[in-house]
Amino acid sequence: MHDLCKNLRVSPEGRLLFHERDLKELAETYGTPLYLFDEDRIREMCRLYRSAMQEAFGEDALPLYASKAASFTHMYRIMKEEGMGCDVVSRGEIATAKNAGFDLSRAFYHSNNKTDEDIAFALQCGVGCFVADNEEEVRAVSRIAASFGKKARLLLRITPGIDPHTYEEVATGKVDSKFGSAIETGQAMEICRLALSVPAVSLEGFHCHVGSQVFDADVFCRSVDVMVDFLAEVKRELGFEASVLDLGGGWGVRYVHSDPVYDLRACILTVGETFRRAVARCGIKAPRILMEPGRSIVADAGLTLYTVGTVKRIPGYKNYVSVNGGMADNPRFALYGSAYTVCLPEKMAEEAQDTYSVVGCCCESGDIIQENVALPASVTRGDLLAVLTTGAYNYSMASHYNRIPKPPVVMLSGEGERIAVRRETAEDMFRYDE
Amino acid sequence: MHDLCKNLRVSPEGRLLFHERDLKELAETYGTPLYLFDEDRIREMCRLYRSAMQEAFGEDALPLYASKAASFTHMYRIMKEEGMGCDVVSRGEIATAKNAGFDLSRAFYHSNNKTDEDIAFALQCGVGCFVADNEEEVRAVSRIAASFGKKARLLLRITPGIDPHTYEEVATGKVDSKFGSAIETGQAMEICRLALSVPAVSLEGFHCHVGSQVFDADVFCRSVDVMVDFLAEVKRELGFEASVLDLGGGWGVRYVHSDPVYDLRACILTVGETFRRAVARCGIKAPRILMEPGRSIVADAGLTLYTVGTVKRIPGYKNYVSVNGGMADNPRFALYGSAYTVCLPEKMAEEAQDTYSVVGCCCESGDIIQENVALPASVTRGDLLAVLTTGAYNYSMASHYNRIPKPPVVMLSGEGERIAVRRETAEDMFRYDE
Repeated sequence: MHDLCKNLRVSPEGRLLFHERDLKELAETYGTPLYLFDEDRIREMCRLYRSAMQEAFGEDALPLYASKAASFTHMYRIMKEEGMGCDVVSRGEIATAKNAGFDLSRAFYHSNNKTDEDIAFALQCGVGCFVADNEEEVRAVSRIAASFGKKARLLLRITPGIDPHTYEEVATGKVDSKFGSAIETGQAMEICRLALSVPAVSLEGFHCHVGSQVFDADVFCRSVDVMVDFLAEVKRELGFEASVLDLGGGWGVRYVHSDPVYDLRACILTVGETFRRAVARCGIKAPRILMEPGRSIVADAGLTLYTVGTVKRIPGYKNYVSVNGGMADNPRFALYGSAYTVCLPEKMAEEAQDTYSVVGCCCESGDIIQENVALPASVTRGDLLAVLTTGAYNYSMASHYNRIPKPPVVMLSGEGERIAVRRETAEDMFRYDE
Repeated sequence: MHDLCKNLRVSPEGRLLFHERDLKELAETYGTPLYLFDEDRIREMCRLYRSAMQEAFGEDALPLYASKAASFTHMYRIMKEEGMGCDVVSRGEIATAKNAGFDLSRAFYHSNNKTDEDIAFALQCGVGCFVADNEEEVRAVSRIAASFGKKARLLLRITPGIDPHTYEEVATGKVDSKFGSAIETGQAMEICRLALSVPAVSLEGFHCHVGSQVFDADVFCRSVDVMVDFLAEVKRELGFEASVLDLGGGWGVRYVHSDPVYDLRACILTVGETFRRAVARCGIKAPRILMEPGRSIVADAGLTLYTVGTVKRIPGYKNYVSVNGGMADNPRFALYGSAYTVCLPEKMAEEAQDTYSVVGCCCESGDIIQENVALPASVTRGDLLAVLTTGAYNYSMASHYNRIPKPPVVMLSGEGERIAVRRETAEDMFRYDE
């Protein structure tokens, strides 16, 4: 399991090291449950995206960190220092990026449903570009920008009609989607016509997002072909030449050993070749390319540490290991049945011979972290338990179900460690009560 | 749809009234999204449980409000005033109840996995009774109570091995459960023997919880038979006579018109008859009966108000209505595919002829509130949209996914209205960031 990411290693003493740190020490310092992040891994992935995209698409290509994967102040500081753009989806994310001193002119504001207040807030904060999902939003952005005496930069979200063959819940590029305007139905051309006609927006180009957990170049290459054809059609039909094409996110991450290994840089270069061929074929000016990696920047930079409580063996049925966290800090098994790799960091040398359901402490049967986990028979109250690859959509999706406070976020780097988000207390649970 | 609960009515002008209040006015005063609670309905349900249980089981019978359904300070004030007990499941719930001035000697502490810190906290706060899930917990409670020089009152959570025929995620009384000790495997008797042997606990009796969304007396009657048999067996085998039997929660609530109508009082009286027969048959002293209603106390006392944003019609595919909330404030469709009744409160007189997917504003395809909702064709940006029966497991399960602040909780009663939980702001989203 320690080959999931190079920040994992088992010591000769049979202990799991994360970013070369012993997990017991970190648990003793910060308590459990605990979200750990390998800041160096995050920075490495940012650099990989920037350099691969520049090589594939030209110097002006830019990755936008899809901050919904993990959004807190220090994350935007990292993105600022690494020269990344950001994809933000709410006033809360915009406010957090602003709190970090992130240059919001490099922020692209997504969401399928921006209220008038959302749009006004984003304009006041100086968000660089709106990604408009639909016609009502184009009109609203123009109307509100005009009232501020501004002209808003705009991309239009287009659904290219590609089925990414990933699981349904995260498939967002199909025609039947709450997101965007479909090419197939003619609605994409219509919204483009609208965006060119309203007074206070400056249309720059188009956005699409096809899948999630994509492990090869194929889906992105198909997107590029469909979208470049669309750009050419828009040029022919409306005389508008897009200067920006945002290909969205979706690059995959290995949660378990059976997930495919792939070379992200090579895949991006392959997409770049497809892009150049498509641009040449269609005779359009090459637009600036954006991508929106989120999960692939932060997922394997994260690890969650728990402490084992109850170990329950029901003869003839099942074994259960309960930990002091669960669906409140990681709802992804409850929501999607997501796979994770689970281990006992202090007992890596022991044979994992029995199978357990690893469950949380919420009063709910569905509060499961992972089913069918092989763990050593010696597992007992007080053991540390690690869930790997939890950097994406764990902290960001965490709830207060059962009034369980959120764990802290601690960042590890070559320069030391820092608390990025402090641990919530029982008293914080009624902070907003009156 | 307005027959789901008597706190709903459509005015002659075709507007939905909730607790006789016009929803547009409330939306204008408090903004949307907005969690509304009918405090009078909550109190009515508390009184119904108290009186029905006393009639069925005797004067000492007590309903414990299962506060995980909706936990905030004012809710515990209501429970205090209504003479209810409480079922709490975490330090956060205990701290909130304490903040409300709730008498914690009337609190029963559940959870399948209490840490040593949890147990110490509960003892320090004066929580009345522990419901121990497993042997490790019995030992831990005794050890920690001893260190405080106290003796902890204890119930043992038993799995009676009944399949409630409700959906799997909420079935918690089967043998194969993370909760409790099974009678079938002999583990229930073993844990009872243990609890009688450790020094610093005072065993009072047993707890079981079988299902959720139960619409008739049958499941509870079967539980009573199994549990009373078990009490008799424990008396024979260990000489211990239980003084408390907690039958758990699970009484159903109507979310949609097709959910069964049932008479809760009559059902409880039927369980009471079964109980008296079982006690007589087994020749044991009748224990005090507790029940743990949560959902049935608060669900139909709740209603969530949203504002419609994007309305999207994809010819040949689907229609979407997006609102300014979603899986962050109500994750139950995303988690369980839960059914809800959805309507436009200002357009109740219009024919609901088209079908829509009602979706949220999160950047996620699975962010759906309800599929196949019939709404008037005039639905448009700015309309109010109500989701009914959201009092249970909506606020309590809410997340900050996409850094979306939680809506406020506003209580309506004959004496007026009050904010029970204030609206979170964009700035609250980084309150704990460092």
